[in-house]
Amino acid sequence: MKKVILTGDRPTGKLHLGHYIGSLKNRVRLQNTYDQFVMIADVQALTDNAENPEKVRDNILEVAMGYLMAGIDPKKTTIFVQSLVPQIAELTVFFLNLVTVARLQKNPTVKEEMKQKGFKNSVPAGFFMYPVSQAADILSMKADLVPAGADQVPMVEQANEIGQKFNRLYRPTFSKVGTLVGDVPRLPGTDGKNKMSKSLGNCVYLSDSPAEIKKKVMSMYTDPGHVRITDPGKVKGNIVFVYLDAFDPDKREVAKLKNQYQKGGLGDVELKKRLIRVLENLIGPMRKKREALLKDKKSLQKILRAGTEKARARAAETMKEVRKAMKIDYKI
Amino acid sequence: MKKVILTGDRPTGKLHLGHYIGSLKNRVRLQNTYDQFVMIADVQALTDNAENPEKVRDNILEVAMGYLMAGIDPKKTTIFVQSLVPQIAELTVFFLNLVTVARLQKNPTVKEEMKQKGFKNSVPAGFFMYPVSQAADILSMKADLVPAGADQVPMVEQANEIGQKFNRLYRPTFSKVGTLVGDVPRLPGTDGKNKMSKSLGNCVYLSDSPAEIKKKVMSMYTDPGHVRITDPGKVKGNIVFVYLDAFDPDKREVAKLKNQYQKGGLGDVELKKRLIRVLENLIGPMRKKREALLKDKKSLQKILRAGTEKARARAAETMKEVRKAMKIDYKI
Repeated sequence: MKKVILTGDRPTGKLHLGHYIGSLKNRVRLQNTYDQFVMIADVQALTDNAENPEKVRDNILEVAMGYLMAGIDPKKTTIFVQSLVPQIAELTVFFLNLVTVARLQKNPTVKEEMKQKGFKNSVPAGFFMYPVSQAADILSMKADLVPAGADQVPMVEQANEIGQKFNRLYRPTFSKVGTLVGDVPRLPGTDGKNKMSKSLGNCVYLSDSPAEIKKKVMSMYTDPGHVRITDPGKVKGNIVFVYLDAFDPDKREVAKLKNQYQKGGLGDVELKKRLIRVLENLIGPMRKKREALLKDKKSLQKILRAGTEKARARAAETMKEVRKAMKIDYKI
Repeated sequence: MKKVILTGDRPTGKLHLGHYIGSLKNRVRLQNTYDQFVMIADVQALTDNAENPEKVRDNILEVAMGYLMAGIDPKKTTIFVQSLVPQIAELTVFFLNLVTVARLQKNPTVKEEMKQKGFKNSVPAGFFMYPVSQAADILSMKADLVPAGADQVPMVEQANEIGQKFNRLYRPTFSKVGTLVGDVPRLPGTDGKNKMSKSLGNCVYLSDSPAEIKKKVMSMYTDPGHVRITDPGKVKGNIVFVYLDAFDPDKREVAKLKNQYQKGGLGDVELKKRLIRVLENLIGPMRKKREALLKDKKSLQKILRAGTEKARARAAETMKEVRKAMKIDYKI
């Protein structure tokens, strides 16, 4: 039997090239080897977007479309919506009894994110305990593996701590979850400085039009010392080359261009035109797929419904075991 | 339409005279005027009994029997089991986003109970946030009123804070919940010193046999200065009189006995015999009812099932509104 993978995204914006490089591309590969579950984490998105539920709702279908656009195949991958699997909330409430407030305070990911978001004690309780909610996501699906960047490893550790504590207290129910730590490449935004992020306005979206792609690439900084075409230019830190490295399938040609650029004689405009072509080759088919999906929302909903039903059945099975182990499987 | 009341108990032990005086008697009265929901709070009991689920399970039926023994009428009162209404867990998870960790730390009831239980930072997260879970209990049932002792008032306040915050953020969904602060008499245990509590071994249970009642009453301290029958005795702090005040329907006779006791000439044994008769008059019919229920567990289960289904339907209705207000009522 194939091993089960759980992964997902918070539906707070359209998917962009950062998602593609960081996770989507990997998922398209993993779905051939694993039984992959991808969760659209609306409940988790609400932990720090409680005042903004429209954003969360509007992006459910966007994220689902992004998955399909990137090549995730609903025949191989189960795509589901978190809030429509109420068993996760039930399990969260039981798991909250198995972890102390002190332990949650020590979670490095929560600590870091609280700092980033400027929460102190004013942190919403839901955000503070989202590692518990994540443990419920992972364990309700009985995932064998969670693909995770290094910063997500503590989350999986926390899930295992809770699972093992449950096993000790009640009866063996949860296996240890492994982490599939691949290298998770971080794509910088078009500003070349920061991680690609909607709030920084430095994203190339999987739905961008040719004109948007062109405008974004043309505005990229290259090497400020590279004034005339004949000047030698720097490759390191040159955002156009970073993108070519990430997306240009012709690695040999990229190597040649780098060489030429460093020696002098290769203009920024020519280089950028290549990147525009490369990105259009990637995004063009996704854009077409998106147009087709937008015209046929029914089949998109059908995919989400089928995936959610499958996930819900799986979680219900887990909860049956959980209730039995906890001796609250009342015969009434 | 009748106003809705929500109340309940943690199923951690059999019901005793302290419960009878403190809440059951009141509920038997309230069920005639209100649409009363009584929750057997197993999920809440697990917040500080996670390692002891058998205790919780075993007492579900005990508590339900106690209700019926005391005169709660399932035709008038909806008795339900908390863990079998998963919508409460769902609502808890959403409510956690509406309250800060700092606010929970300030809850006086939680503070007090954490002190009592010797929790510090090692408090389980589930216990720490049980005011949020209580808010979900109350608001999922759309209760108008919660009968509460003075120490429970902060819980209702917390529920209202969360409900009002939900209304402000999303749309008006929850009405303000009132507190039905009756005087909640506290019955001391048979030791005369502490509140009646299983862990102190000072309880008279609603299921006690005549021999147990006799033994417990005979061992009560009265007035240590009252050595001979002819000695004058103290009424104040005399636990036998405290119980007669609480349970003897003949208030005039009790007044006469107090008078006689203070003057001298009334023996402890005679006094205790009266209390034994009084308690047997109360508990005898309950004991009989219990025996009948034990012989017919099916009908007890039927009562719990019907009550739980009614509560679940009510909570599902609330969750429908909640999802709509939160804009997560997806059409998929």
